[in-house]
Amino acid sequence: MLKVITLEEFIKLIENIKEVKEEKVDIDRICNRVLSKDIISPCNLPGFNRSSVDGYAVKARDTYLCSDSMPAILKLIGEVKIGEMPSFIISEGEAAYIPTGGMLPSGADAVVMIEDSEEALAEVLINKPVAKGENLVMSDEDVVKDEVLLKKGTLIKPHHVGVLAGIGVTEVCVKKKIRIGIISTGDELVSPYSSCPVPKVRDINGFYLKSAVEEDGCEGRYYGIVSDNKEKLNEAVTMALNENDIVLISGGSSAGNKDYTIDIMEKHGKVLFHGLAIKPGKPTLMADCDGKYIMGLPGHPLSCAVVYRFVVRKILDKMYGRQGDDIQIEGIMGVNYHKAKGREEYLPIKLEEGVIYPLYAKSSAISVLSKADGFIRLPRDCEGIKKGEKIIVLR
Amino acid sequence: MLKVITLEEFIKLIENIKEVKEEKVDIDRICNRVLSKDIISPCNLPGFNRSSVDGYAVKARDTYLCSDSMPAILKLIGEVKIGEMPSFIISEGEAAYIPTGGMLPSGADAVVMIEDSEEALAEVLINKPVAKGENLVMSDEDVVKDEVLLKKGTLIKPHHVGVLAGIGVTEVCVKKKIRIGIISTGDELVSPYSSCPVPKVRDINGFYLKSAVEEDGCEGRYYGIVSDNKEKLNEAVTMALNENDIVLISGGSSAGNKDYTIDIMEKHGKVLFHGLAIKPGKPTLMADCDGKYIMGLPGHPLSCAVVYRFVVRKILDKMYGRQGDDIQIEGIMGVNYHKAKGREEYLPIKLEEGVIYPLYAKSSAISVLSKADGFIRLPRDCEGIKKGEKIIVLR
Repeated sequence: MLKVITLEEFIKLIENIKEVKEEKVDIDRICNRVLSKDIISPCNLPGFNRSSVDGYAVKARDTYLCSDSMPAILKLIGEVKIGEMPSFIISEGEAAYIPTGGMLPSGADAVVMIEDSEEALAEVLINKPVAKGENLVMSDEDVVKDEVLLKKGTLIKPHHVGVLAGIGVTEVCVKKKIRIGIISTGDELVSPYSSCPVPKVRDINGFYLKSAVEEDGCEGRYYGIVSDNKEKLNEAVTMALNENDIVLISGGSSAGNKDYTIDIMEKHGKVLFHGLAIKPGKPTLMADCDGKYIMGLPGHPLSCAVVYRFVVRKILDKMYGRQGDDIQIEGIMGVNYHKAKGREEYLPIKLEEGVIYPLYAKSSAISVLSKADGFIRLPRDCEGIKKGEKIIVLR
Repeated sequence: MLKVITLEEFIKLIENIKEVKEEKVDIDRICNRVLSKDIISPCNLPGFNRSSVDGYAVKARDTYLCSDSMPAILKLIGEVKIGEMPSFIISEGEAAYIPTGGMLPSGADAVVMIEDSEEALAEVLINKPVAKGENLVMSDEDVVKDEVLLKKGTLIKPHHVGVLAGIGVTEVCVKKKIRIGIISTGDELVSPYSSCPVPKVRDINGFYLKSAVEEDGCEGRYYGIVSDNKEKLNEAVTMALNENDIVLISGGSSAGNKDYTIDIMEKHGKVLFHGLAIKPGKPTLMADCDGKYIMGLPGHPLSCAVVYRFVVRKILDKMYGRQGDDIQIEGIMGVNYHKAKGREEYLPIKLEEGVIYPLYAKSSAISVLSKADGFIRLPRDCEGIKKGEKIIVLR
């Protein structure tokens, strides 16, 4: 019996999918990888008390009550060099020049900005009092040793690389790349690289999926086009399953074809469902093969893209333990849109200055893929959405 | 004399920057590259009239007035196979089975859904009339030959790769990757890979910038840390300028250092400005060296990241002819924020369920980089923003 499940049921089904293993990678190559362990800072930052301005290191109490007309006169005893330990101690009545970022000498507890002072031979005149700690960055002000700086599951971006460099962590544990094998099926398919006599069509899904999984931080491997033939498809699936963590088969939605896709899945594992109550994307199958997965995706390009984006990626998030980017874009419907009850719908849309326009397209269409700015999700029981209503745009 | 310009003046200044040259690249490797020519479709898509359902190809007028109780009885003359030319013509009173995606045989002008029919030996009974063109995708319905499918300047994403595969365009002209040389300066800097005795600090900017330019579709090359020494810096700049299109020098914001950074820039080209009226990021310099550029960025990590994001990237957009992703995220201020007039300010923020919270941080801080969800921009004349006000979040 065909088992069609809702997206909620699907999400429950994949709740306990195991995460992939980890590997150590140099920070030079971790962009778009997923942290597999919390990053705990091995040190305080900046790690010493620094000046945040160009000026003079002083004892704050030496500046109390000073003013333009009654400057505090301090003895200039030296100059702090950036990146060097000061070789002197500031005693009462003394000051030393210090550049931005320079280390505060012992004895000093504040820095007077250069604008509020005047150098005169071996002395410096201070025109404005400073409080203890003023114009300083304290030793642990930025990062405290042993604090969790980045969380497991973080998708690494350039600013994270900067932070890791800053604390001297140059190798981190990230999730191994999920390996994804991609197979396109259908007697009507030809390669984009060969000629396409009527009524053949070019394989879109194989190329879309390979780019999409790579963009998503996975390793994609394209196994080419397999004709509608059970033995040949089984051969390709066996090889792909052996070499990957997930196998995506797109196409093969014709009745007979679908049957043997299920047969092949059953041979390799346990079929979890035979269809998803989403539109487009109903003809989606999934089998669990001892912790590896085979997914059958619809052959129509728009349906295939929707299922990749809103179904397959949920599995990848789970396997990576990836924390989703939860920033949401909201728009206002520019037209009324009617929908039948029963299936959750993902509608491609164009967003123009915050206003959402649905792109009406048959699911076989490819041009819509180049025009859409994102999708809106209409829940199962929803019967449509009115012009002027707010709705979240998914990208 | 020091020339400090506003961001508006900067944008005007770079208006006529020349775009980089193009190269031909296979569609398998064009994700995140920028199209340098419009893509004009060489063909109609689907390229032939196809059925959009499983059913029977018929002449529509043969089904007029039929119903459940009075079916039209048509002679079944064959079966269309997907990916094959039909070997027959549909004449009056005839029908042929056709699967989804199958080519419509000559003579037929519509398809009856299988649900609305009944097969009986050599005949098929049609229970519901169809109009001409019903359940068909016409030859040029998806893509029309010679239409501009993707525009010059498009940043290629996986769905674009799918579209290109669909029209059989397997090699496209994209902008050559901009080569960016990265130099970090400062006597206080050490490599993240070596130990960091007080009061040294690790080079953050070099690692941040390399990741950021690569994430941005450029080639990044890190020339390491150069100490505060005019000859050594000049050597590094000369080499980097020779090997790249842009050289980014971060740090060296101390007065003496800044002077010789300007000297070096002047030696290699024409200094365009000595500072930007933005906060953080004022100590930003730029020189034009015969169509190559040297930029001096602030040494403070937060300032450096802001200048990369909001200044350097504008140059990259120009050189790539890249069409910005203009989708905007809006949030509501969670607190009042006061600002002094005079400089445009970019404030790092945290976004929580649509509510914006500023992250107060000294520009020397690195931890803020790991916490920010984006920035808000406060124009020069703005004196702050009130709790509850809407503002765009820049990422």
